[in-house]
Amino acid sequence: MGDLKLDLDLDALGSDMFRFVEELFPICRSITGEGIRTTLDAIAKRVPLQLHEVPSGTAVLDWEIPREWNIRDAYIKNRAGRRVVDFREHNLHVVGYSSPVSRRMPLSQLKRHLFSLPDQPDLIPYRTSHYSEGWGFSMQHEKLTQLPEDEYEVCIDSTLEPGNLTYGECYLQGDSKKEILISCHCCHPSIANDNLSGIALATQLAEHLQSLELRYSYRFLFIPGTIGSITWLARNEDVIGLVEHGLVVTCVGDPGHPTYKRSRRSDAPIDRAVEHILRHSGQEYEVRDFSPYGYDERQYCSPGFNLAVGSLMRTPNGEYPEYHTSADNLDFIKPECLADSFQLYLHVLDVLENDRAYLNLNPKGEPQLGRRGLYPSVGAQGTSSTLMARLWLLNLSDGEHSLLDIAERAGLPFVAVREAAQALLDGGLLAPVSGSPVP
Amino acid sequence: MGDLKLDLDLDALGSDMFRFVEELFPICRSITGEGIRTTLDAIAKRVPLQLHEVPSGTAVLDWEIPREWNIRDAYIKNRAGRRVVDFREHNLHVVGYSSPVSRRMPLSQLKRHLFSLPDQPDLIPYRTSHYSEGWGFSMQHEKLTQLPEDEYEVCIDSTLEPGNLTYGECYLQGDSKKEILISCHCCHPSIANDNLSGIALATQLAEHLQSLELRYSYRFLFIPGTIGSITWLARNEDVIGLVEHGLVVTCVGDPGHPTYKRSRRSDAPIDRAVEHILRHSGQEYEVRDFSPYGYDERQYCSPGFNLAVGSLMRTPNGEYPEYHTSADNLDFIKPECLADSFQLYLHVLDVLENDRAYLNLNPKGEPQLGRRGLYPSVGAQGTSSTLMARLWLLNLSDGEHSLLDIAERAGLPFVAVREAAQALLDGGLLAPVSGSPVP
Amino acid sequence: MGDLKLDLDLDALGSDMFRFVEELFPICRSITGEGIRTTLDAIAKRVPLQLHEVPSGTAVLDWEIPREWNIRDAYIKNRAGRRVVDFREHNLHVVGYSSPVSRRMPLSQLKRHLFSLPDQPDLIPYRTSHYSEGWGFSMQHEKLTQLPEDEYEVCIDSTLEPGNLTYGECYLQGDSKKEILISCHCCHPSIANDNLSGIALATQLAEHLQSLELRYSYRFLFIPGTIGSITWLARNEDVIGLVEHGLVVTCVGDPGHPTYKRSRRSDAPIDRAVEHILRHSGQEYEVRDFSPYGYDERQYCSPGFNLAVGSLMRTPNGEYPEYHTSADNLDFIKPECLADSFQLYLHVLDVLENDRAYLNLNPKGEPQLGRRGLYPSVGAQGTSSTLMARLWLLNLSDGEHSLLDIAERAGLPFVAVREAAQALLDGGLLAPVSGSPVP
Repeated sequence: MGDLKLDLDLDALGSDMFRFVEELFPICRSITGEGIRTTLDAIAKRVPLQLHEVPSGTAVLDWEIPREWNIRDAYIKNRAGRRVVDFREHNLHVVGYSSPVSRRMPLSQLKRHLFSLPDQPDLIPYRTSHYSEGWGFSMQHEKLTQLPEDEYEVCIDSTLEPGNLTYGECYLQGDSKKEILISCHCCHPSIANDNLSGIALATQLAEHLQSLELRYSYRFLFIPGTIGSITWLARNEDVIGLVEHGLVVTCVGDPGHPTYKRSRRSDAPIDRAVEHILRHSGQEYEVRDFSPYGYDERQYCSPGFNLAVGSLMRTPNGEYPEYHTSADNLDFIKPECLADSFQLYLHVLDVLENDRAYLNLNPKGEPQLGRRGLYPSVGAQGTSSTLMARLWLLNLSDGEHSLLDIAERAGLPFVAVREAAQALLDGGLLAPVSGSPVP
Repeated sequence: MGDLKLDLDLDALGSDMFRFVEELFPICRSITGEGIRTTLDAIAKRVPLQLHEVPSGTAVLDWEIPREWNIRDAYIKNRAGRRVVDFREHNLHVVGYSSPVSRRMPLSQLKRHLFSLPDQPDLIPYRTSHYSEGWGFSMQHEKLTQLPEDEYEVCIDSTLEPGNLTYGECYLQGDSKKEILISCHCCHPSIANDNLSGIALATQLAEHLQSLELRYSYRFLFIPGTIGSITWLARNEDVIGLVEHGLVVTCVGDPGHPTYKRSRRSDAPIDRAVEHILRHSGQEYEVRDFSPYGYDERQYCSPGFNLAVGSLMRTPNGEYPEYHTSADNLDFIKPECLADSFQLYLHVLDVLENDRAYLNLNPKGEPQLGRRGLYPSVGAQGTSSTLMARLWLLNLSDGEHSLLDIAERAGLPFVAVREAAQALLDGGLLAPVSGSPVP
Repeated sequence: MGDLKLDLDLDALGSDMFRFVEELFPICRSITGEGIRTTLDAIAKRVPLQLHEVPSGTAVLDWEIPREWNIRDAYIKNRAGRRVVDFREHNLHVVGYSSPVSRRMPLSQLKRHLFSLPDQPDLIPYRTSHYSEGWGFSMQHEKLTQLPEDEYEVCIDSTLEPGNLTYGECYLQGDSKKEILISCHCCHPSIANDNLSGIALATQLAEHLQSLELRYSYRFLFIPGTIGSITWLARNEDVIGLVEHGLVVTCVGDPGHPTYKRSRRSDAPIDRAVEHILRHSGQEYEVRDFSPYGYDERQYCSPGFNLAVGSLMRTPNGEYPEYHTSADNLDFIKPECLADSFQLYLHVLDVLENDRAYLNLNPKGEPQLGRRGLYPSVGAQGTSSTLMARLWLLNLSDGEHSLLDIAERAGLPFVAVREAAQALLDGGLLAPVSGSPVP
């Protein structure tokens, strides 16, 4: 059976991922441009990453690759020449994809381009204008309301020009061509949970898996949100049929409990696997149905593809007050939450890698376990669940129930049933059912 | 799409229906005779109504049309010549289908023919003797117990003779021959909720629909209970196969909350449609399973027909204390309850008329709504549910999900999804699936 | 229809069964040997019983018939010659299948062969060593801890030699060769609830049924646990295909509420029948899913057989503190609990014997019950449920619903629906559907 090395040093893992988030935090990312390139270069130092550049204007499904956006500086200066809003202080101050501006204007005119959060007056909101030309600044509401009448100098030193959309792909070859897709968006500027947490977890997962023997092949996508998955889907119609399972990784570092959003199919193997792992995780969790709002699962689960892709997160997008503000920062995410999320992902993959059906070779009556040394010695730790896992396996291994089916019916964790299967295989009581279930 | 003019003036509607109940209230109806003819004539002044007369003795399924019953007067006089029970005071005083009587008798003998409600001593019960010959008087229990010993003159000036069973049928031709059956019983004397409320609602519904463009044809049946539906079924075996959906209208004017009794099939489209409308009605309601006791749904849902006919009522028969007594009168029903029931019926028909499947013409990835002006402008009232309805429609319009399926999965009201479908049709993003689902 | 004589004298039944338990209680049974033979002889005095002897060493499925064990005496004497532990006082004092011993040893060495229950210090535990050679004594913990240092004389006067495994089979021929299996284990020494209660109930049931006309054939197995069912299964592969339904009878005399453990199939007719009877039993009960731990259902439900065998008990094995101790004695079980269990079993068999589908011969509309005297007269006791049972039967007797299906949907007890079916059959309104559903 596949051994995914589930015995983890969670402290070290959490620190590693957190440090990677720290490294990437200052970069001003957008859906195109140097920020995402720099981010992908950092990932590429850790895992094998193929970079793709797709020219502006390329048609991708119903969309078109936009012009590339880059920014060097931006500010609002008062008449006295003091920067009252400064991109160099926080890259959220500039609305993403703002066109270049260099003008003077009175406060009243400027205000049409200023965005703030009246209910969270000390936070800078994250705003973008990807698909409609314009410019703007985001700022703290308390600062905005105190701006005096004045003539302001507005400067956005950006370019919005033909260029490329950039994304990265890390492919790990397994025994089968059937693959598991792990996708995360990399287009947000200095925002920690959404989605540097996802980038760090996906990178760490690829690192962890790359030296292991794998049943499935794995494809990790590091892409700008929406346009990135649309671009990848448009360019990979031949690969799409190989995707058996998938997860969108986002918001995995906050202290909220895990949340799983099912795939559109709602009862795909990935849905069953994640729900099983969460049920046995010993912590509070939530499972919710698919909805066509969220991140790139919207594209993977569009009806023309209908991939079995869910999203395993902690607190979902839009449901924590720090979401899409300057408060989604390095203080908001926790190394131990990153590590816990990582562990859940790895256990889900353990299910996908090892779930298959076996055949009880002595299906009539119970085989005599004692004579084979397979009756756990009384009094040993975990006797009862070890014995029950073996009895359930023997009882349900009629070729129609996979290990996960059996774990679910027995109310036992997958790992216990997988270990029981190994013992019974070693004892000559089980045989794998050929070709079951994939790949 | 079909426009059922859902934008109603509920006050006017409620008053109209209530006035019609008032008009019909004094008539002494039974399962045959002049009372039901007069009632049908009044309905015929409002909607096109075909009247049917079926001769006594005609075999209908397992039954036979009974003799026609008519009554002019009835009373119990004491020796002093005073009417102590008087049909002219309340037509419930006479047991329905009482044979003619003209006799003198002592109290002890008379009492065998007197019916009252000991637990509701001030009410006159509604009793009938349709299928076993006999006679009787109903009266207030408190009055009955005070009758002094005396010789009483008993007179029931009725006739029970070969004649006809009468019923009315209002047929509205739609695009399809497939039809929706709306059935109400018209055989109770001065009882308001059961079922003048149903007669008024069905009549108003036919009036409302008759000028509209309809996908389905509609058949409204105004019939005596049990024998009427049996008669109609016996005479219309060729039509029965065209009935796609149906509702029995009864007890729709009382202040109780709406109750839906499912068809025998229990998951027919009519069942799903009514349950959907009730779930989104914003009021308390109850859905209960089919049971072979109630009104004419018993006949429509008998196993030889098994029509998809449920019953949408307010408080069901037998479950309010005024039921089948003189207290089920004009004080008991409310114009606003009639109007609310009407509105529920019309929304149910809106679902039936407009539910069909569409095909997303850009099924791969989400189409770019912004470029087509289909991304609702931020901040507008209802942005979020408008957007969500469009996203759900696009996601599930794979030809296998109808608008109602989508509304149910999205948790949105049908009307929101129907409006979204119109917008996406207009935007060229959807196409109807031919022939889906009916007719 | 089959009449199982449900009208029972529960007091007499309870006393009968209790007396049989009293008679069998003193016998020292094991999985082989004279104890089980004596027990089977006692059963054979009440019902026709075929005895089987299977020689030691015979291969049965994955197992082998063990040597036969018999015991005459056993004790531990102190140096003073006093029996401090004495088999003649309680046969639980000797570990079942103990090899013969005759030795002197100090306390320290003896203690390795002594078993007690520290948490229940006044009880003797029931222990066996069927499949691994050894010897031991069970005793009260409070007595064990007070044993002084001494040299003890240990004697177990047993034999463990080639012989036979013995079991009994009572077969009652019904109309069909399809059969119902009732199995109980007979291998425990002086333990009342587990499983003299089951032996008494099964014997009583066979007595009750033997004079009745039966649709099914019945096979009662009186066997040693595990090895007995494995032996029977190994020797009866030709019969196994005839077993339609089955129950393992165990722990049916304690005052706990009834518990049903479903068959591996979980929705077999036996599962539906038992659950129906329990739901209408008017008492607290529990239904739990199959699990591959318990008594002989483990073997019947192994995947190579997968028989529709559940277990109807009261408090399950291992879930009452007296379980497998000297406290599971004649004080623990109650005649009225035995009688209640018997009644449940008989009602379950009533369902299995009489469940079939009928056809409403007047399926279009309701037939007129009044004209046939089938409309229950108003005011009579149970009018409403009698009428409802008839209406439900007529409504659902389309050939696709059996009496149990109808009882379940109507929420009525099976017996009410069965009686209604008889009335409608007599009235010419129903006809049996040929071959439905078995046998």
